[in-house]
Amino acid sequence: MRMPSSDILVIGGGPAGIQAARGIADLGYKAIVVEKRDRLGGMPDEAGYAALTPDMRDTGEAIAEMVAPILDNPGVELRFGTTATACTGVAGDFNVTLQKADGAAEDICVGSVIICTGFKHFDPGRETQQYGYYQYDDVITLVDCERMLKAKNFVRPSNGEVPERVCFIQCVGSRDRQIGNEYCSKVCCGVASKEAIEIRQQVPGCRVFVFYIDMRMYGYWENEIYWPAQEKYKVNYVKGIATEVVRKGDKLIVKGEDTTLRRPMEVPMDMVILSVGMEPSEGTEAMAKVFGVKQNKYRFIETIGGALDTVSTTVSGIFAAGACTGPADLEDSTSSGGAAAMKAIACVRKANTQIPA
Amino acid sequence: MRMPSSDILVIGGGPAGIQAARGIADLGYKAIVVEKRDRLGGMPDEAGYAALTPDMRDTGEAIAEMVAPILDNPGVELRFGTTATACTGVAGDFNVTLQKADGAAEDICVGSVIICTGFKHFDPGRETQQYGYYQYDDVITLVDCERMLKAKNFVRPSNGEVPERVCFIQCVGSRDRQIGNEYCSKVCCGVASKEAIEIRQQVPGCRVFVFYIDMRMYGYWENEIYWPAQEKYKVNYVKGIATEVVRKGDKLIVKGEDTTLRRPMEVPMDMVILSVGMEPSEGTEAMAKVFGVKQNKYRFIETIGGALDTVSTTVSGIFAAGACTGPADLEDSTSSGGAAAMKAIACVRKANTQIPA
Repeated sequence: MRMPSSDILVIGGGPAGIQAARGIADLGYKAIVVEKRDRLGGMPDEAGYAALTPDMRDTGEAIAEMVAPILDNPGVELRFGTTATACTGVAGDFNVTLQKADGAAEDICVGSVIICTGFKHFDPGRETQQYGYYQYDDVITLVDCERMLKAKNFVRPSNGEVPERVCFIQCVGSRDRQIGNEYCSKVCCGVASKEAIEIRQQVPGCRVFVFYIDMRMYGYWENEIYWPAQEKYKVNYVKGIATEVVRKGDKLIVKGEDTTLRRPMEVPMDMVILSVGMEPSEGTEAMAKVFGVKQNKYRFIETIGGALDTVSTTVSGIFAAGACTGPADLEDSTSSGGAAAMKAIACVRKANTQIPA
Repeated sequence: MRMPSSDILVIGGGPAGIQAARGIADLGYKAIVVEKRDRLGGMPDEAGYAALTPDMRDTGEAIAEMVAPILDNPGVELRFGTTATACTGVAGDFNVTLQKADGAAEDICVGSVIICTGFKHFDPGRETQQYGYYQYDDVITLVDCERMLKAKNFVRPSNGEVPERVCFIQCVGSRDRQIGNEYCSKVCCGVASKEAIEIRQQVPGCRVFVFYIDMRMYGYWENEIYWPAQEKYKVNYVKGIATEVVRKGDKLIVKGEDTTLRRPMEVPMDMVILSVGMEPSEGTEAMAKVFGVKQNKYRFIETIGGALDTVSTTVSGIFAAGACTGPADLEDSTSSGGAAAMKAIACVRKANTQIPA
């Protein structure tokens, strides 16, 4: 009988995957990281985030710091432009087929797998959400806004002018039963408030409104983002539900209900920013199928054990960390990446002990 | 030169500490767990939680499952009725003085330390919060309520009668600048809503109100707790700020402002439940001093590296996990417990490699 492998396959090179790979190497095991893109960093890099929430640290700098320990690390093998397409075997002895973009395939033997394939942003043109994202140039998403802020070029896409009034509409694609996403995406309140502050910093003459159901700046974000946004940067938070965006001449009209004043509202804006939530990425959905792990009703990967185990899946030896298991902030991803590395190593140790050579 | 120790000291036997100890043992290292109480389980056990948020799983059962892997485990040494009182040395070679309740002291040598000393509930009698907790028997906290629900004895403490109207007041000791706790405690919205459901289950005739600023049921809690509370259990959520509780005859009168209706409110209740937030436990404050790690402005232990590292402290080789670093839910605690075990093992491995025997 051949020896099972003690190598661990990490799928996805974002924050959770980087943290997991680092932990595996630090403990003397080998991590094989496959990433479909040609670089590490995951969504913060791919989407071009300007600054991280809540500390507003430069994203590029933070990612470079995060990535450094796994570059030129003998315990980490990086494979870019690669995905996993098939898996057979059991915990301690998986055979996984890796495929490059050019179609070249290779089978590798690993003892355990950690899926870290993250999320994608909700597409605001999908289904019942009708905020005119694909109709009006001046309706953008949190991600578009982030890119503009990073380029220090926060202007109206329609005419290049500096906006005088912009608003964020919260919970686009989250807390929405009509589209089936009942969950809260956790980070959009904080991200919107961070961007609201940055808009006020870059375009001090622009008034900024946030239409929200509940502002969810949990933990320290309350003090780090929410209070400064209101007090120092005079962002206007309006508890209200925006149901429609229409164009009127040169302006966008946001229609809805101001739930504090309990009356319909129709407010003119130069730009509308949709706070899009999280959905499972294509990679997450594909890996769930390749590795046969159960997905929850939102198609994120289901972890078992409730709050007592955030990284084990329905298949022994296959773990998941970060936003592929559901809405997660960066802290969640780095913590669960570390916890998953721990469980994956424990798994290969156990398999090596139990199976005779 | 003597060999540095590769044992790891885990301080605190709650969810984060249990998870850390388990991880350490699973990877072939030895965890020495010191716990000041005479049993494991931490705050969920000490405070007598009835059921866990959000899945309403029986707490005793969940804790037993969590604890089992570290009982009779050769990789885990449990020391009850014990605290750490002094520490000298450096990462890889710490000398820690442990003291039993009877005063007996012993020095041990460990390579790394993980502090998991958790939080305490805000004392609603302290400072400016004047909801009459120490004046009126029928004003209780989330923790008191949990105990009554566990005993299936949800009655008015003042007269033993079944209440007809009860309310929760959110953010007691959280999001409160007057007392200096600007942070959000993360879990109280979910816990209050869970208890509201349980009250409706145990006392179907009782109306339940929740006075809140923002309801923060992030992630899946939205669908698991918030929707059922509103729809199936008819809990009444009122966006409003309660400023005072006074007694009038047999009733408690909650005074404040209904911010949706924008008018003062004065509502009679049979019982008032204060949703008390998290503050650092005495153990957390004591351990910060013993190990010389920096505390943040709220006196929780400060982790360094922002979102990229949730468990490293200002002292190399000393890590922290769970609610001793700030408000945390159970998922946060189990994830960070695992991540801390990983970092602590990496630390002792590195020290063993670098220091010649």
